[in-house]
Amino acid sequence: MVGGSTPVFDEIIVSTALMNQVLSFHDVSGVLVCQAGCVLEALSQYVEERGFVMPLDLGAKGSCHIGGNVATNAGGLRFLRYGSLRGTVLGLEVVLANGTVLNCLTSLRKDNTGYDLKQLFIGSEGTLGVITAVSILCPPKPSAVNVAFLGCPGFAEVLQTFRTCRAMLGEILSAFEFMDAECMKLVRLHLGLSCPVQESPFYVLVETAGSGPGHDAEKLDRFLEQVLDSGLVTDGTLGSDERRIKMLWALRERITEALSCDGYVYKYDLSLPLDRLYDLVGDLRARLGPSAKRVVGYGHLGDGNLHLNVTAETFSASLLGTLEPYVYEWTAGQRGSVSAEHGLGFRKKDVLGYSKPPEALQLMRQLKALLDPKGILNPYKTLPTHI
Amino acid sequence: MVGGSTPVFDEIIVSTALMNQVLSFHDVSGVLVCQAGCVLEALSQYVEERGFVMPLDLGAKGSCHIGGNVATNAGGLRFLRYGSLRGTVLGLEVVLANGTVLNCLTSLRKDNTGYDLKQLFIGSEGTLGVITAVSILCPPKPSAVNVAFLGCPGFAEVLQTFRTCRAMLGEILSAFEFMDAECMKLVRLHLGLSCPVQESPFYVLVETAGSGPGHDAEKLDRFLEQVLDSGLVTDGTLGSDERRIKMLWALRERITEALSCDGYVYKYDLSLPLDRLYDLVGDLRARLGPSAKRVVGYGHLGDGNLHLNVTAETFSASLLGTLEPYVYEWTAGQRGSVSAEHGLGFRKKDVLGYSKPPEALQLMRQLKALLDPKGILNPYKTLPTHI
Repeated sequence: MVGGSTPVFDEIIVSTALMNQVLSFHDVSGVLVCQAGCVLEALSQYVEERGFVMPLDLGAKGSCHIGGNVATNAGGLRFLRYGSLRGTVLGLEVVLANGTVLNCLTSLRKDNTGYDLKQLFIGSEGTLGVITAVSILCPPKPSAVNVAFLGCPGFAEVLQTFRTCRAMLGEILSAFEFMDAECMKLVRLHLGLSCPVQESPFYVLVETAGSGPGHDAEKLDRFLEQVLDSGLVTDGTLGSDERRIKMLWALRERITEALSCDGYVYKYDLSLPLDRLYDLVGDLRARLGPSAKRVVGYGHLGDGNLHLNVTAETFSASLLGTLEPYVYEWTAGQRGSVSAEHGLGFRKKDVLGYSKPPEALQLMRQLKALLDPKGILNPYKTLPTHI
Repeated sequence: MVGGSTPVFDEIIVSTALMNQVLSFHDVSGVLVCQAGCVLEALSQYVEERGFVMPLDLGAKGSCHIGGNVATNAGGLRFLRYGSLRGTVLGLEVVLANGTVLNCLTSLRKDNTGYDLKQLFIGSEGTLGVITAVSILCPPKPSAVNVAFLGCPGFAEVLQTFRTCRAMLGEILSAFEFMDAECMKLVRLHLGLSCPVQESPFYVLVETAGSGPGHDAEKLDRFLEQVLDSGLVTDGTLGSDERRIKMLWALRERITEALSCDGYVYKYDLSLPLDRLYDLVGDLRARLGPSAKRVVGYGHLGDGNLHLNVTAETFSASLLGTLEPYVYEWTAGQRGSVSAEHGLGFRKKDVLGYSKPPEALQLMRQLKALLDPKGILNPYKTLPTHI
């Protein structure tokens, strides 16, 4: 997404594709230890056969490697439920720039013996070391999954629906995604999908994953009754069989695909405080006027993560100039993040300063100098050009 | 527990007790931002009044500061459910050794802009910087809590009960604690508590915390029926009102107090692979014979954390010599941790090598030199004397 794994100039590519072995799996604790080149989908299948799930799931699961997931601190669809890889990764084996093998591949849930060195390598995009093996905690597989697709009259109601959802669904809530009316128009227009509820300014997808099918359906029914009665939601539909769940998820998951049919796309992946999450979309519509074809907002609302996209017939430097640095400055003004889950890579490394103070950039530079003094690990990436 | 906050020679003590203000709380996302000197119990009360709970709970909550909790990466009673502080702490403000204020006090669930610097300070026991403010994610408050206290015929059955528990209780499981028959003898003898179930070689305490009182009780009943029918559990009792829940928890929580009435206590806090968790207790009983009064094992089984305690009439250097380094070597042989949640501090810093390879000790030393070149931050602690 940000060119973190794309060679730019004179890099040598190291592939871990042949390091694809599961080293151990413990079927009581759910701890999986595997080599870095294991494909996420293969691992998912392996642990699901044993009654567990991987704590992360991504669109790219069919091709991405677990080592890369950890190196980029991947977020994805299960983040709301199982949290960050910083909590679920238990251990790593890493090769340092000087060739030293740092073996921190423990499988312990708790280990307070000194500094937690593995954290240095999670999310550092390969710039501090090469991850060669991963130990990760897998949660038990939920026996029931349900999805509700809802229409909301305004963004304030979307937020209130989220609040009600957390209170009434609690521990079984596994996703809370939103999209605006423009997104729905896009998936209709370009992909021929149809809206399963009454037309609304906003749509919400709620997923539950739990251990009691009857209980979970009952909780979801009660929640739906509550949000409909109170006017937070104007219309809603439920899905519990696999086909319908997939159909409802497609409305949200295929937005990226629909966008690419709409013209040139300017993409932003922002973390913002929940109450201001959608304000930038309105601001930009007013700012850009007819110079943009469409300004749309959707994303992982439960995680405070907005995917903001602007389309136009073709690329235009003047439109880009109206968008940037405005979008980054706006985000910085809310103490948001200019890269919620995609990282910095090659393309975003120079906007880091909008989300991190100079003292942090300085410490990043010092850590890079300590661990990779010759700058041989994923050069030209992650660290700003001038700091 | 390990003397991490106790001055030893010429230290100057910095107190954050007056920095006790809540800076913000967001009642949709549950993000709390507060100064480092806030007492954990005060924060718990503050967020509970708003429908949330702190993601950690400790016996010491009435006096410990949140800054200290983060600096020591505290574990505690809610770890099984809400995971490590490495996942729930969203941001930190830290004063570095050179006086620089490092402001990484964001409140975002997702932020992949560069290295996650706050992780350096979580669990480093004040040796790399002084934490002055914390941003932390609070989960919604569960509306129903239930406890089951069970007797098991052997440790294999304890493990099978845990496996069944995870499968049948799933997302509502909030604690899985165990204690052996010797622990029960201790709390009876020294504190006059009575065993609520038939006498057994092992006892298990299961806690659930969920959003549906009726559902949760039903799930727990079904689980209990299953483990009783299959012989994994020989007897069990339930508690759902506050008084009875407290009474059942007291059997587990007051073991430390009972131990201190039994004589001099040698204490170990170990993380071990689940299948070997209890083996060391048996080994030690055989090894120590009559030179020890009692060898007992209990702990947070759900987290793989064994509290191993040996009592004797008085301290004896020869008994200590039989215990150490044997206990550490045994733990290292299982790739366990010689300090699961207590940290290293002053007393355990020289046993670090049993859980970390020389390459990790070397990197720890380099990080210390980078961030605190003059060694002024919590000197004599955490890092081994000779590395």
